[in-house]
Parts: sequence; structure tokens; C-alpha cells
Amino acid sequence: MDQPLSVPPGRDLRLADFDPDFTAGLDRDTAEAETRRHCDALDELAYRLFAEAKRAVVVVLQGIDTSGKDGTIRMLASGISPQCLAVKSFKAPSALELSHDFLWRVHAAIPPHGTIGVFNRSHYEDVVVVRVRKLVPKDVWQDRYAQINAFEKLLHDGGLTFVKCFLHISKKEQRQRLEDRLKDPKKQWKLGPDDLADRERWDDFQKAYDDALTECNTPHAPWHVVPADKKWYRNLVVARIVRQTLERLDPKFPKFDSSLLTKLD
Amino acid sequence: MDQPLSVPPGRDLRLADFDPDFTAGLDRDTAEAETRRHCDALDELAYRLFAEAKRAVVVVLQGIDTSGKDGTIRMLASGISPQCLAVKSFKAPSALELSHDFLWRVHAAIPPHGTIGVFNRSHYEDVVVVRVRKLVPKDVWQDRYAQINAFEKLLHDGGLTFVKCFLHISKKEQRQRLEDRLKDPKKQWKLGPDDLADRERWDDFQKAYDDALTECNTPHAPWHVVPADKKWYRNLVVARIVRQTLERLDPKFPKFDSSLLTKLD
Repeated sequence: MDQPLSVPPGRDLRLADFDPDFTAGLDRDTAEAETRRHCDALDELAYRLFAEAKRAVVVVLQGIDTSGKDGTIRMLASGISPQCLAVKSFKAPSALELSHDFLWRVHAAIPPHGTIGVFNRSHYEDVVVVRVRKLVPKDVWQDRYAQINAFEKLLHDGGLTFVKCFLHISKKEQRQRLEDRLKDPKKQWKLGPDDLADRERWDDFQKAYDDALTECNTPHAPWHVVPADKKWYRNLVVARIVRQTLERLDPKFPKFDSSLLTKLD
Repeated sequence: MDQPLSVPPGRDLRLADFDPDFTAGLDRDTAEAETRRHCDALDELAYRLFAEAKRAVVVVLQGIDTSGKDGTIRMLASGISPQCLAVKSFKAPSALELSHDFLWRVHAAIPPHGTIGVFNRSHYEDVVVVRVRKLVPKDVWQDRYAQINAFEKLLHDGGLTFVKCFLHISKKEQRQRLEDRLKDPKKQWKLGPDDLADRERWDDFQKAYDDALTECNTPHAPWHVVPADKKWYRNLVVARIVRQTLERLDPKFPKFDSSLLTKLD
């Protein structure tokens, strides 16, 4: 039995309906072996997309702190050659970025044809964290849902395929991961008071994500809710979705002028 | 015994003095095991550079077609986390890029503090291919040596460390690799008439590289000539140089506010 990873566009998407600890009855070893097979397939598929150079893919990774965005990127990078991959992290916007509309910096980071982009956070921060921390008025962030949908449609019509993944962890699992980070000399430097403050607004974040995932769950760019309490299951789900997406695109190598073979000295 | 990988700044650097098939007497298995150890160390060192976020590194990869730039990048990416790495490929310049000075697009691609950039080709194309194909007058490309040295000094003074690697293969090895590519359905699409035409100007390219590597072999950004006929020895040499560079920089984790530990709900 398989938990639904997505809901039909137009229907309410509620994170509370999804089990963050779901693993489809798999054990870790089985899942990791299957993930490895997906990554091997991704290597070849991504290279064909690169060779064809007519279409692009963006994997959007959203999720609260510690949900596993970096780990997911590392898994994808283990399968896909660096020349075919473009990782982009969206941090708090700079003064220059804030002097433009919120999609300006995102548009600039869209990967060229032939490339798989991976967004570590994205324009969805502009309807979630911005809303929870009250950085812009309500009418501004509310208008953004339609703006995002139109933007993603433009890109979709231009040959870009979105793979939007929400990495879904429980509040309990986040506590464990924050504690691990706070005790690890190699990880604790990443944490500041803001991270703990965001945890106090857990319910506000879940509500903001419910709305964003519902409003921007479109036929041309649907959302996937990825159970992420188990890192190995999260990796398996994302690897499988990206692989299935590329198999559907089925990119082809360009034609080759075989007369070149006779011209090598 | 070890072939010298570099020559003192100010002295003539001649590629003919370096054996592209040099392997220091190592066999493939030993070299690959050592490369793997370097990559494991790179993972931790790169993460410390990322955490410290005060300095950056750029690995410049130059070499003729088939010299192994993509393969070297893949090796580095196997060791270094994507969040710490920024790969940039410099292709033939666009109309916009050509409407600026030749270093404009390079400056824009310099990695931010905390990041290891890898340049697949670089501004050295502007004193090599541009010269061989006579794309600009001689006085223009000749002036570029000093311009490059001043540019690299600026970046060096700003906390950037250059690791400039010339991947050195023989004309015979290139023939083998071109033939392999021409016969491989997954690789042949990459080749066009230009690639074979460049091979006919082999000696011109070697001379242009001799001059560029001599003129831009500075104390703040020296060149390394990497024997690259054997891919496994090339990987070992580059992994070792990058590791040694990072060990010399010895980046530190930032201080941590341990009072946060008591504030987790």
C-alpha cells in the first residue's frame, strides 16, 4: 500500500493528512539499494537531457529547518554528473534582490536547456516565511499565489518541468535533529536563535504550507509531499519521482555526422 | 621520484618538458585508493571552508579537447558536498559577454566566500584558442597576460586561492580518446568538425599554452602541469593538490553560542 504523495489540483492539501514517518513497509537496506538503482538510471537520463539540450527540469525542495534539503541534494548529486546539474540555494534576499519583484532572482536562476536545476528553498519562501514573520502585508503575499502559478506556467510552456517536493517531517523528529545539531561540533555553528524561534511558530508554518501547497498545486506544476522522518525513505521517494519525470521526458541524443569517423588523422 | 608539477615563476614553462604519461611508478588500484582518501578528506575540509565563510578557492581546469576536464570535475564532486561546490563551464562567449571586456564574465562567476569554484575552461581560453584561431589581434591577446595577472592578484588579495591545473595529454592519447568518442553512441554527438580542426593545429595550441603558462605563472596563482594520459593518475594529482591547498588554508568552524542548548523545547 502506498500513501498518496499528491492530491488532485483544486482540492485542499493538508499536511496533517500525510504521515511523515511513512515508509511503505520497507526497511532501510532495501530502500537504499533501490535508491542506488534510481541514481544510476538518473546518471544516464540526465546525460541524455544534457546532450539533447532542448528542455530543462527544476527540482524545488521546500521544508522546515532540518527537513533534509541538503541531504536530498547530496543524494541527487551522487547520481547526476556535475555538468548536468545546477544547485541553487535561496537565502534571505539581498538588498539588490529586495529592490526587484520577488520572482526576479528566481527567474535568473532557472537552469538552461539540458540542465537539471535543484532549488534549495525557492519562491515558496515568499508565501511562507514571509507570511509567518509578517515581512509583507497579507494582500501582498496572497496575490503571490496567482503570480507564482502564472510564472510556473510560463516556464512550463517554455520546456521546463517542475518537480516540487515538500519534505515533510514531524515536530518530534525536528526536535531530535535540532538536538543532534546542537551537540555536534561540526553542525552546531549552523544554528542561531532564529531557528529555535521558527520552531515556536510550528503551527503557523504548517498552516502557511497548507495554503501554499493547495493554491499552487497546478496540473503543470504539482506538489509532492515526501515523508521525510526517515532519511532513507525520503531519498528513495525523491529519486524515484525525478527518475520517473526524466523517463517521461525521454530525452534523445542528437544526430551524429558519421563521416567524421573517416577524418581523424 | 616525482616529476616537478610546476616551475618557479619567471622561468620558461614548456609542456614538452613534462611527460603526459608520468605515473610516479604507481599502479591504478593504489592510485584510486589514495584518491578516495583525498576525496574523503576534501569533504570535511570543504565543509569547514563553507562554515567559516571567509575565503574561497577556484580550481581552474584547462587542457585541450578530451584532456579530462569533465572527468576531473566528476571526481571532485564525488568528494565535495554540492552546497560547498560551484561548477562553472565557460563556453564560447555570448553576444552579451563579447560586448564586455574578456574578464567580465569570469569575475561574475567567482565563487562567494565559503565556496570551492571549479572552472571548466576559463579566461585562459582568451589567450589560447583566441590566439590560435586568430579571433583578436596579437597586441590584444598579448596585453591580456598582464591583465590576467592583475585580476588574479586582486582576487587573491580578497581571500581567493587559485588552483590552476593544466591537464596534459599526448597527441597519441588524444587520438585514442577521439576515436573512442566517435564510436560511442553516447559520446559521438559531442564532436563536430571544429574538434578535428583544432587537432590539426596541435603545435599551435601547445605553443600558446607554453606562453600562457609561462606568463601567468605567478607566486599568488601558480600553474600545475598535471600528467593526464592516465585518468587515474590525473585524478590523484588534482585531488592531492586541492586537499593540500585546503589543509594550508585550515578553515575553522565559527564559534557557537552553547546557551542555545538549554532553549530547545
